[in-house]
Parts: sequence; C-alpha cells; structure tokens
Amino acid sequence: MRGLMQSWPLTVPSVIDHAARWHGEREMVTRTVEGAIHRTNYAELHERARKLAQALRRLGVGKGQVVGTLAWNTHRHFEAWYAIMGAGGVCHTLNPRLFAEQLVYIINHAEDRIILLDTSFVAILESIQTQLPNVAAYVLLTDRAHMPDTTLSNTLCYEELIAAEDGNCDWTPVDEDDACGLCYTSGTTGNPKGVVYSHRSNVIHGLAVNCADGIGARSVDNVLPIVPMFHANAWGLVFAGPMAGCKLVMPGARLDGENVCELLTGERVSVTAAVPTVWMMLLQYLEKTGATLPHLKRVIIGGSAVPRVMLEKFERDYGVEVVHAWGMTELSPVGTLASFKSGMENLSFDERMDIKVKQGRPIYSVEMKVTDDAGVDLPHDGKAFGHLLVRGPAIAGAYLKGEGGQILDEEGWFDTGDVATIDELGFMQITDRAKDVIKSGGEWISSIEIENLAVGHPQVQEAAVIGVAHPKWDERPLLIVVLAPGTTPTREEILAYLEGKIAKWWMPDDVAFVAEIPHTATGKIQKLTLRKQFETYKLPTA
Amino acid sequence: MRGLMQSWPLTVPSVIDHAARWHGEREMVTRTVEGAIHRTNYAELHERARKLAQALRRLGVGKGQVVGTLAWNTHRHFEAWYAIMGAGGVCHTLNPRLFAEQLVYIINHAEDRIILLDTSFVAILESIQTQLPNVAAYVLLTDRAHMPDTTLSNTLCYEELIAAEDGNCDWTPVDEDDACGLCYTSGTTGNPKGVVYSHRSNVIHGLAVNCADGIGARSVDNVLPIVPMFHANAWGLVFAGPMAGCKLVMPGARLDGENVCELLTGERVSVTAAVPTVWMMLLQYLEKTGATLPHLKRVIIGGSAVPRVMLEKFERDYGVEVVHAWGMTELSPVGTLASFKSGMENLSFDERMDIKVKQGRPIYSVEMKVTDDAGVDLPHDGKAFGHLLVRGPAIAGAYLKGEGGQILDEEGWFDTGDVATIDELGFMQITDRAKDVIKSGGEWISSIEIENLAVGHPQVQEAAVIGVAHPKWDERPLLIVVLAPGTTPTREEILAYLEGKIAKWWMPDDVAFVAEIPHTATGKIQKLTLRKQFETYKLPTA
Repeated sequence: MRGLMQSWPLTVPSVIDHAARWHGEREMVTRTVEGAIHRTNYAELHERARKLAQALRRLGVGKGQVVGTLAWNTHRHFEAWYAIMGAGGVCHTLNPRLFAEQLVYIINHAEDRIILLDTSFVAILESIQTQLPNVAAYVLLTDRAHMPDTTLSNTLCYEELIAAEDGNCDWTPVDEDDACGLCYTSGTTGNPKGVVYSHRSNVIHGLAVNCADGIGARSVDNVLPIVPMFHANAWGLVFAGPMAGCKLVMPGARLDGENVCELLTGERVSVTAAVPTVWMMLLQYLEKTGATLPHLKRVIIGGSAVPRVMLEKFERDYGVEVVHAWGMTELSPVGTLASFKSGMENLSFDERMDIKVKQGRPIYSVEMKVTDDAGVDLPHDGKAFGHLLVRGPAIAGAYLKGEGGQILDEEGWFDTGDVATIDELGFMQITDRAKDVIKSGGEWISSIEIENLAVGHPQVQEAAVIGVAHPKWDERPLLIVVLAPGTTPTREEILAYLEGKIAKWWMPDDVAFVAEIPHTATGKIQKLTLRKQFETYKLPTA
Repeated sequence: MRGLMQSWPLTVPSVIDHAARWHGEREMVTRTVEGAIHRTNYAELHERARKLAQALRRLGVGKGQVVGTLAWNTHRHFEAWYAIMGAGGVCHTLNPRLFAEQLVYIINHAEDRIILLDTSFVAILESIQTQLPNVAAYVLLTDRAHMPDTTLSNTLCYEELIAAEDGNCDWTPVDEDDACGLCYTSGTTGNPKGVVYSHRSNVIHGLAVNCADGIGARSVDNVLPIVPMFHANAWGLVFAGPMAGCKLVMPGARLDGENVCELLTGERVSVTAAVPTVWMMLLQYLEKTGATLPHLKRVIIGGSAVPRVMLEKFERDYGVEVVHAWGMTELSPVGTLASFKSGMENLSFDERMDIKVKQGRPIYSVEMKVTDDAGVDLPHDGKAFGHLLVRGPAIAGAYLKGEGGQILDEEGWFDTGDVATIDELGFMQITDRAKDVIKSGGEWISSIEIENLAVGHPQVQEAAVIGVAHPKWDERPLLIVVLAPGTTPTREEILAYLEGKIAKWWMPDDVAFVAEIPHTATGKIQKLTLRKQFETYKLPTA
C-alpha cells in the first residue's frame, strides 16, 4: 500500500520560490567586493536568479552541466547558486585558498564548462587558464564599470548577462536525486575528491539545520554567514536562510575584526557562523577597541574545535551564546551541534563550558556511532574513543567518478576519519583525526586534547602534537610549539603547565620550538608535513 | 548527473531510533486513562514499540496491513503508532467522537484487521462489533489488572502482548513512499474520505514543523500535545517531539481546565497545542481559581480561528505567546503559523493582535495561493478573498480507494475548501468555508468574520451566520445566536453592536435566537443543518 501524498520533489529552486513569495521584502545585505554596501531582497534575488538561469541556458548550461564559482559570500554568488541549480546544472564551488595545481586538477576533473568569479580572483585563473582547455567562458561577477583588464579569454560581464534577459522562464524540471552541487575535499593525501550534493540532500539538510535545536534561523533573525559558500556549503545557510526568510548579511571579502564588527552592529546581526580563526580576529579587535556586541545572540562555531578561552569570552564577556558545531564537506556539512539538554542551563558556568567544548549531539537525519578498530560499538561514557562513523540522507555515499573507491562499509556507514568520544547524554567530542592519534604501547593518545591544553599557556601561540617513533612504546607524543612574540619559556615550564591536566602517560616526551607550523589551504595543521619534518627526531626518552 | 549522497529513506522508525539513541533519558509523562500519572522515557518507549511490533507481526500485521487505534494521547498510543508503522503497517486513527455509523463505515472501508483501543471506548465498539466482520482482534491498551468485562470477541491485553516479546528485532524495511498512516476527514457531505500518509510525508512534515519559526520544539522544551493523536496527526508532534528529543506530556482523557492546568504547572510545560475549545475551558478555570501559568511560554492554537479575546487574554493577562496556526487533515496537518516577521515585535499591542488573529504564513514545503472562481491568482493585499489552494510533499494527492475522484487540478493544486485573504507580508486569513460564503448581489460576504464579531458581544455565547434566500440579492446574511444564560438582549441591541465594525452591506438582515447550534463530531458548526433548519425563513427585508 502506497501513501497518497502529492508527488512534490525536494528541489533547491523551491527554496528561493518560497522566500520570494512569502519573504519577498526581506533584505540581503552585502559588503561587495568593490567595497560598498549593497541592499536587495528575496523578490529581487529570485528575479535575477531566473534571469541568470536564462543566460546560462543560452551559454549551453543544461542538466548535469558543471559550472564553477570562485567567489566570496555576496548576493551575486547567492544568485549564481540558485541560477545554476535552477537551470539544472551543478554548482562547483572553488576554494580560492587551494594551490594553483589543485585548482587545475579539480576544474578539469569536474569538467567545469563555465566559471563565475569575483574580480579579486582574476589573477589566480589568469595564471592557470592555459591548463583549463574545457572552460568555455569566464563570467566576472561585476558590472561593466568594474570589469578589470584581464588576459582571461572569453570573459563575460555578470550584470550584462542578467540585463539581457526578461526572467520569464521556469526552472528546469529535475528529479530530487539529480546532482546540483559539487565541492572537493582537500584531503591531506592523494588528490582532492568531489562530494556531489543532490537537490534532495540540500533541502533535507536545510530543514534539519533550521530545526529549533539546530542553527534554528527564524524570519526575524539577521544572519551573518561568514563561513564561506566556497567551503562546506556555508553550513547550509544558503538554503536554510531563505527557507526561514531571515535577513542574510553577506560579508564579501573582508573578514577582519573591524569589518565583521561593523556588520554585526550595523546590521543588527542576531546569529552568525564561522570558524575559530575569524572569531579570534574579532575578539582581538573587541579587546583592543572596547567595542561590544549589543545585538548578537548566538554564534555557531565549527570547522575546528572551539578553544575554551574563546567560548568563555563570548559567553561571559560579551553575553553571546556559543553553539559549538561539527561537520564536514561529506555531511553537507552539519553533523552535530552542542545545543543544551534540559537542566544544563542551571549548571555552573564552568560545568556549562565543560559541555560546550564538546561538539554536541547529531541533528535528526544524521546517524552516528564510535567504534574500535574491530568495528565494535563503543559505550557512550565520554571516555572510550574510537572511529566516528555516520550515516544519513545528506551524507556522501561515493565521490565523483568513483575516486577513493567504495567509501561505505557494508552497513552503509561512512568513516569520518575523526576519532571521538560520546558521553552519557549523547554529546560527541572529537579527540583527534584517526591518522593523527598517537599509538603508545597499544593505547591511543589524543593529539588534539594536548594541543588544546597547550594553547592555554599564555606564551604559546600555536601548538601541534605528533607521534614520534619510540623503541619501547612504538610512538610517543612530541609537542611542537610556536611561541608568542617576545616570550622565551623553557621546555620544562611548558611541560609543567600540562602536568596534572592530563594522564601521566599522555605527557609529551619532549617540546620542540618552531617559528611556524604548516597549514593546509583550509587552515588546518598539516600533520603529515610535520611528521616528515620530525621523522628522524630523537626523543630524550628513546 | 546524479547526486552521490547516501540512499537513506525518510522513515518513521528512524525518528524513534534517533530519540532513543540521543535522548533516551528524556521523559514522557502520561495522565493514564486509569487515572494515575505514568513516567517513561524514549529509550523505554523505543524498546516497547519494538516488542509491540514483534507482537503485531505475530498477529499477522505485515506491510500495508491496516491497524486501527481508538485512543487518547498516552504513552501506549504513542508506542502503538511506532510499532504499527515500524512493522510496515498502516496506523488508522479512529475518532471516538464520530457517530457509530461513521465508525462502522471507515473501519470497513479501511479494512482494519486489528483495533487497539482504550478501555474507555469499549462500549462504542461493543455496540458495532457485529458490523465489523474483518476485525480479527481487539487489543485493549491496558494491563491485565485493568482489563474490563466486555462482550468484544477476541480481546487481547496490550501489556501482555508486550511482555511476551524480547524486542530483539529490526523494523520492517519499507520504501519512504509506502503508506504508514490513515485518517478520515469528516466531510459535512458524503462519506468520510481517507487521507493516506507516507513515511516520507510524516518525516518531511515533522522537520518542517520543527523549524524555529514553526512549532519549533527544542530538546529543553516540555511539550503538551492536547490536540488529539486521533485527529490530524496531533499536528505532527508525535514525530516532531522525538525528533527534537523534547519531553512530551500526554494528557490522556481529561482535557478540562483543572487537569490541563495541573499538567501545565506540574510538568513545567513550555509549549502546548490545542483547539480554542480547550483553551476556553482553561481560561475559565484560571479566572475562577486565580491560578497562573508560570512556566508556559507558547501556545499553538488551531483547528478553528482563535477568538481575539482569547488571544488577548493569553498574551496580556498570562504572558503567554500565542501562535495562531491553520491546517487540515489533508495537510498532515500544518499549513501556516502566524510567527512574526521582523519589526512586528515593536508594534503596539493592538497592532500585534491584528496580526495574530490571522492564520499566518505557510511553512516551507507548503505552496499556497488564493484564486477567484475563474482560477485567477488574487493579489496579496489582505482584502481580496478567494479559494485557498495548496501544494506540497505532505499534502494529499488523492483519497483512499479513489473516493472523491481527482482532487488536484491540472497543476497539482489541492482546493482546501476554505476561502481566505493573503496580506502584503504573506499572512493568510481564513474568511470562510467556500460553501458557507454568502453571495449577495454577486459579491461575497464572510460568515466567519461576522460570527467572530458577534461573539464579542458580552451576552452572545455562540453565533453562526448563514445565507438565506432573498428575492433581490439572491442571499442575505442571517445571524443566529445562542444567548448567555439569563440574558435577554434584543435583536436591535445585537445589530447595534455590529454597526460600524463591518461594511453596511455586510450587516445581517435579521437575528434569530436559538437554544442550541448544531455541531459536527469534531466540534465545527453544522452550517448545512442550519441552512436546512432556516430554509423557509423569511427575512424582514425580503
């Protein structure tokens, strides 16, 4: 017996249709790449996205065609997403922080036919265009007056493309399982791999993220997604925002403390989302200037673990609720949020922070478990840590063109590559990347936990912990630190700071002082490079 | 090009799996039919639902088998829903307020094989069991000690069925479009028609309802669904609640002011939902006793329009936010909610109430429009009123066994049978049922708008407005009132009260005083009966 509900596919264009019809007057505010503040609303965005869809069709974009975007969070980038997906195409977000050779690889691998780009990224593509034989046109996300001089061939002006159309068209009919988005993960080994989102996965993820215990945007909210659209889907806000009809504030290229503070205050932002690095800059700016955050209610922080000191500053000094989140490109990207359970609001400040440093509970539509090396489920006790596996309708089942082979186990679980604990109340905490765990005498030591403690030392600017070969224990932890400018603590002082805070056998066997710690294009510590660098390092205990 | 996300069907059992795993400790509190308060949690509910699914399979329930329930909102009814749907069956909720012949009709039409019932409803089924040849067993939702003496044949004890199983089973694999729920609409004409929900529609509706601007349940919330599970899916809370992991408080059979007040306070309920009749009883109780609502934050009111005086009492006298909602069985059922848009919170009290008497904006996943008789879209101006049409993934596309024929127009729109306006900001307001609109000289007069005004007169207990034949204008409005006990206002006093509040040509041509206004099983005014009763009524203006 079948249900007798209407056949109504879950598609991305239905989201902007909803916003235009029921929240047409609601604003989108952009700090443009050209510098000025630009104001529009969902009704206009909808109309311009339809015109752009017409223009893209004229340029040959049809079902399944891949169109690249290399752009900041702006109204034009937002329009471009809906236009590409609405024309039946696949929007391939390019991360401008990737190395040139990685960009060449993914543009060719994905077979991008057209690339839409901000003027700030012209130089990047000029330098590699001869290696991109399949790209038929470059659309510059600007108007005629701001078109740059460029050696890029076949350039088109975005505003001219839109001006030439009448918007009198329907979206291209699609199946909800059709592809509409593509984002490559910048793996630390091997080539980047493409995650292919469907209309269905984007809509389900948008709904799940909008649930009250998720990011929970309301139409009265003013939301600032600093997390970039070119990385991990802007945490779903490009879909969740218009679903809720909230005002979106798009920060463009300038993510420094001053500019972010100006947008937060000037646009009365109530909810915002970004990685810790952005908040570090903002907090430094606030401390320097004495500025406050009078309108901000909630800040979603993910991408990497929130340092406890950042959490405490937001909550205690600025009265802003922090919601720690975890996700990854393969999860569309949100997996968990540390929204409180009943009773937690009555705990002491320190106890509440103990909960908030964890990455939190999975949203509905994400199944999750931790297992040991043999695949056996580990208890929810907050102590046992193991491989973090996930399953769900907005989680990757394979990479583009089969790269990486079969990525699910026989029960359909995807291994995140993270190592985590889950406590009695279901709060998950990442303890490490599986490949970065230090295996000492058959037991696991979490590199991240030690790093998080070490950066609490006032003279430590950044810290990394890696496993170094040891004749007796196989591996032992080495703490690598970048010192704060002008400070000179000793090895012993650093180690003394850690004592009592972690188990004795977790204590690093040595401390190495370096001028710089290498990072990936997305800002993560390159442990692989560090391990190579310290391959022959001899521990004093060895 | 297809998306490469995991194949993960949207199924109802995944909801209770989520709740048990991530909110296993969270309570469900029931005022049992036997009288005592019962406490359990999602982990136990999950286990018992699995055991019941095993027992139902043993009784022959497999994919597509229909199982009836005739029960109040209790933990057992909740378990029964998940067990029936988890066993691949279709849960057919029976409304105990239906007339006996209607129950016979729908039980036979739906081919219920088993019926689960509360002991309070034994007499109803005893009286009709000889007319239910296909029902193989009656399961009494109680334990052995409370099993009643009954002439029902083939009775089974619910708690014994559960005790006999080990819970060691998987849910029956289903496709997300498979049927899982069935609810008949009690049309005022013709036979009741069955709305068949799918796993997919229930999950999508649950997510949409949980969005922050929807009912927006959070895990910290204590939610009291007074709206019955046997009618309109308890507004989706049976699915939305466990998705969010909130505490559910199930009120059982006693919905009077005293009992509802006791649950609201004793269980620190933060969010609740019911029809106006229930709130009328509660408000009367509060006024009589001087009791307050210290914990309640939000009350969702739907089913019929919220009288303005009720709205004002909740908001001004008790500090409780009212969210006016609209839906119907065919919509799973939620269509709109009157959540505020930006800036509305700063309006004056009266202006805010002007907004809240409207039924509000559609949630994402509900498309909506109003059209004139010729099918032309009407403007969003808050004035033009016409047929209210809807489209969406949790909206009926047909009735069971094709009753009522083709119910969608060629563009897939479902005509709700309601007449409504939509204002500039997208707030919909029901003005009438299409068949109750009074057509005077080719123009429409809303019967509901006049009724709502009339009940504002302190001596009018209930009011109904119908069209009565008129030689010149075709129809003119007749106001029918039930007076408050011991009052004797005149026809002229009642009409004087309306003057200036509505357009002159909307003024009723006469007032008829009656002892009682007839109601349907679900509490709606039976306009059809009234029209028959006043068929030959001669208006003074005729």
